[in-house]
Amino acid sequence: MKPILVFQTDFTYLEGAVSSMYGVVKTVDRELEIMDGTHELPQFDTWSASYRLYQSLPFWPKGTIYVSVVDPGVGTDRRACVALTESGHYVVTPDNGSLTHVKKLIGIKAVRQIDESVNRLRVGGDEEVAVFHGRDLFGYTAARLGSGIIDFEGVGPEYPVDEIVMHDMAEPEIGDGVVKGIFEIDDPNFGNLWTNIPTADFKKAGFAYGDKAFLTIEHNGEKVFEDSVLFHQSFGFVDKGEPLAYNNELTKVALAVSQGSFAKQYNIGYGPEWKVTFTKISN
Amino acid sequence: MKPILVFQTDFTYLEGAVSSMYGVVKTVDRELEIMDGTHELPQFDTWSASYRLYQSLPFWPKGTIYVSVVDPGVGTDRRACVALTESGHYVVTPDNGSLTHVKKLIGIKAVRQIDESVNRLRVGGDEEVAVFHGRDLFGYTAARLGSGIIDFEGVGPEYPVDEIVMHDMAEPEIGDGVVKGIFEIDDPNFGNLWTNIPTADFKKAGFAYGDKAFLTIEHNGEKVFEDSVLFHQSFGFVDKGEPLAYNNELTKVALAVSQGSFAKQYNIGYGPEWKVTFTKISN
Amino acid sequence: MKPILVFQTDFTYLEGAVSSMYGVVKTVDRELEIMDGTHELPQFDTWSASYRLYQSLPFWPKGTIYVSVVDPGVGTDRRACVALTESGHYVVTPDNGSLTHVKKLIGIKAVRQIDESVNRLRVGGDEEVAVFHGRDLFGYTAARLGSGIIDFEGVGPEYPVDEIVMHDMAEPEIGDGVVKGIFEIDDPNFGNLWTNIPTADFKKAGFAYGDKAFLTIEHNGEKVFEDSVLFHQSFGFVDKGEPLAYNNELTKVALAVSQGSFAKQYNIGYGPEWKVTFTKISN
Repeated sequence: MKPILVFQTDFTYLEGAVSSMYGVVKTVDRELEIMDGTHELPQFDTWSASYRLYQSLPFWPKGTIYVSVVDPGVGTDRRACVALTESGHYVVTPDNGSLTHVKKLIGIKAVRQIDESVNRLRVGGDEEVAVFHGRDLFGYTAARLGSGIIDFEGVGPEYPVDEIVMHDMAEPEIGDGVVKGIFEIDDPNFGNLWTNIPTADFKKAGFAYGDKAFLTIEHNGEKVFEDSVLFHQSFGFVDKGEPLAYNNELTKVALAVSQGSFAKQYNIGYGPEWKVTFTKISN
Repeated sequence: MKPILVFQTDFTYLEGAVSSMYGVVKTVDRELEIMDGTHELPQFDTWSASYRLYQSLPFWPKGTIYVSVVDPGVGTDRRACVALTESGHYVVTPDNGSLTHVKKLIGIKAVRQIDESVNRLRVGGDEEVAVFHGRDLFGYTAARLGSGIIDFEGVGPEYPVDEIVMHDMAEPEIGDGVVKGIFEIDDPNFGNLWTNIPTADFKKAGFAYGDKAFLTIEHNGEKVFEDSVLFHQSFGFVDKGEPLAYNNELTKVALAVSQGSFAKQYNIGYGPEWKVTFTKISN
Repeated sequence: MKPILVFQTDFTYLEGAVSSMYGVVKTVDRELEIMDGTHELPQFDTWSASYRLYQSLPFWPKGTIYVSVVDPGVGTDRRACVALTESGHYVVTPDNGSLTHVKKLIGIKAVRQIDESVNRLRVGGDEEVAVFHGRDLFGYTAARLGSGIIDFEGVGPEYPVDEIVMHDMAEPEIGDGVVKGIFEIDDPNFGNLWTNIPTADFKKAGFAYGDKAFLTIEHNGEKVFEDSVLFHQSFGFVDKGEPLAYNNELTKVALAVSQGSFAKQYNIGYGPEWKVTFTKISN
């Protein structure tokens, strides 16, 4: 059975771009199965692209080809590539930071630059299109790879994994009864905020389900939140509208408001400038 | 051929949750076909989940497995279940009111509580994830059921259909020339409002296509709309911007504004506190 | 292998309409593959429906059945039809202007009116539903055609292609060093605006990649933009926040702001009242 192609982009479904991109895939090989990852990534935000790959990719079958197109540099000389991960998945993407989390947290075995002289759909003849690599380059190459027209070598020349463009990633600091980290990403739907602190490390530092922890949030060095919050397994352990710290779906510590939005209620965002500190409250 | 899995949730496509949920399904069984019902249900709104199931489920082939995840009580002791409907469909859902319309209007033959000791994907080892039952419990169980790894008995222990958690459902009052009901739900896209009054009953009460009916809308006992409206088959029978009462897609009486929004134009919502009264206008 | 059914509508995924429409297709024939074109077309906007068909349809395999439902006249006497294009695709749609671009720019070989006496799903018995042709007429007929239950003749009686309802389409004026056109459509996601000027004609008029062109935009005869803009292949050739003219994905001249929104930054829309004039800047 041929591998699944999963797509994530910042294209939205507001117009015909996704449809034409998928049409190209189906024209290459009618049998290929296409799934939406998401088409609502924040525009030009390669950090979010990177995080969402890390969040989703590992749950798909080995061999799945994940196409990620957040591409502010489309048509310039940034590399277009296909990465083979240690987990046995492929990622087809501009090499612009979108592989940061996958490389660091899952591992990349090999990466190849897409050879546009073979793996490029030529639309427009003399007026060749330079602005829609999702359709003409990434989707097209993924379809050729998925259908077996090319193998991984057929993508194009290999280059060192070390050359993959990376975003900086902050590391949490785990002390005894004090844990520091950042809000690494949000859940934009429910308004939860996800730290970079593994729950396992958090527990080793002395925090247990049912404990109250003292939480400080700083934004650019300024304190914006300071209160004790319950640490527990799920939202229902606090009343509606109350904040809590919990173990999120990627087994990291996250903040939520039960049936509400932590982000909105406390006006909190994410990124390296949003620092969190948990301090144990002595009994 | 294996049954289709249709998903409806309040997750949105803003981040990677749907993708990881679908990845789990495909990892259980690559052949399973997944369809989006919708991922844009109003957050935590089990009433809407219930209505949308009733609106959509009957149109799918028998055997279809409908997964509905609007789950404000995730991680607490509400039941997770699979219901077998009188129409021959399965619904995989938290038992939290989401089955109200299906039970009352379609009928449920049997319901089983998901046995988490077998039908639960364990993500995170010691830090087991408690907050993403869409991925780890509902989607996973639906995939196992769809693939034939388990049968309906394999879901877990049966419990009485009478114990299914129900929302209150108001009944319309059908008199001679006077019909009372509520706005039960909206069409949030086009701004139509759907009553709980079956069109068949409405006609029996003396209203015919082409008639004008006198409509009163009360919100918490206060009159918010009072005018005569045309009752007809479709929107095009009144001018653009004009209101009308029509037979909706579920053969109930609904209110619309032609090429406009009844909800916005008259500032109308839905729920038990929105009462409608139609009175026949004598010729 | 059976043809793919691609759907574009203005229904959104906010409620259960798309799900019930797709359920009907799968009930007609479980094997049919359904793809989302988009369900977020602007409401009642048959011009956008027409443009998005033209933008997407040609990239799908021959035989693909594209269902387009933007239907302000649902339930009135506008024709429901299936068109066979010169490119070998089918379009199932209300004949209400939605075929404008396909007819003019791709070509229509034949068109047939859907015979509702055979190709109509009867929901509701005596209270037959008149408002959801997406589910009961267009989707249902497309499924019957795709599954082979009917062939193209089985759709219903043919009528002259000349009778297809058309929107007016403005033609660009190509002079030596002066090119005039309109903004024909937008890219609502990235805020780009697409003219009706083919890039090939633009180049013949004397504009080359790397040139600055003098651009005037008039709205209803009033000048709203006047500046020189770079004409180049892609966004990365100007700094973030700077405007440029480029060759878009359909090989027409378009306007963008690099990593920004031209539409928002300069408050520009589209339609026949939005005229653009490019004048060559002498070296």
